[in-house]
Amino acid sequence: MMYDASVPVFVHFLNGIAALLRKTEAHVQAKKLDPNAFLTARLFPDMFTFTKQVQLACDFAKGTSARLAGVTNPSHSDEEKSFDELHERIRKTVEFLRGLNKDQFADAADRQITFKAGGKEQTLKGADYLSQVGLPNFYFHVTTAYGLLRHNGLEIGKADFIARF
Amino acid sequence: MMYDASVPVFVHFLNGIAALLRKTEAHVQAKKLDPNAFLTARLFPDMFTFTKQVQLACDFAKGTSARLAGVTNPSHSDEEKSFDELHERIRKTVEFLRGLNKDQFADAADRQITFKAGGKEQTLKGADYLSQVGLPNFYFHVTTAYGLLRHNGLEIGKADFIARF
Repeated sequence: MMYDASVPVFVHFLNGIAALLRKTEAHVQAKKLDPNAFLTARLFPDMFTFTKQVQLACDFAKGTSARLAGVTNPSHSDEEKSFDELHERIRKTVEFLRGLNKDQFADAADRQITFKAGGKEQTLKGADYLSQVGLPNFYFHVTTAYGLLRHNGLEIGKADFIARF
Repeated sequence: MMYDASVPVFVHFLNGIAALLRKTEAHVQAKKLDPNAFLTARLFPDMFTFTKQVQLACDFAKGTSARLAGVTNPSHSDEEKSFDELHERIRKTVEFLRGLNKDQFADAADRQITFKAGGKEQTLKGADYLSQVGLPNFYFHVTTAYGLLRHNGLEIGKADFIARF
């Protein structure tokens, strides 16, 4: 249950971001645009760029799953500067997620999870950590990445976000 | 478990939107702005307004919880045109959610849930419906509402979105 509510969901939406990246690349090529118009887009000057939103979506998927599985959270440095590099960031995140197995999540719902938020250490049981921290933060960054593409005129719809129906 | 992963999470984030509305109202009053600058804001002309994003966040919280609890999903018409009316929409949604109890969710994870998506009827077991449909759609609209406020210069941060730490 904790596995089903986390790993395959993260993989699904990360693959959704990869599909959005491919649509963005095709649009950039067709209109001869500067890729940075999308990669460095922000909704407001003190918000994160599109690239950082993708990196953070990857990190919340990876960190949440690692903590629930009780394994080391691998560090992925934030150096992506192109669509290709973002695809690679997503690929290695998905590879990590797919390397986890259900058994590692058997006691995850009740296990105490320690994590950093707002600059200090916090502890929650796994089920609350997933519901109150992992999922909302993940969707926050996926949705903001989607919103940045929409705001900059990419012709996509919510079906591209949900990517299921 | 299904109750904990849905109802209190929805209530928490709906109360978060209500707090964002109060900050927006204070900002509008302090700067003598037109409330509609926020209420009808969109990230792109063919996207929904801020008001509609809040209405949809309420509806996904209500509809998801009603289906998981196996009770009738009350209909709330979309007629809000002011901050006060959006507060009332959130209030009656939260009231409905708080009227549900854990027992109603006892078999929710495995029960078949039928819902409409992309114009046709779909069926998923409750756990998948919550993870793949209810939560992502809910967070999609909450995050887009937040993004619209940020984009229009309201001084808030992700802590206002998570509203926990």
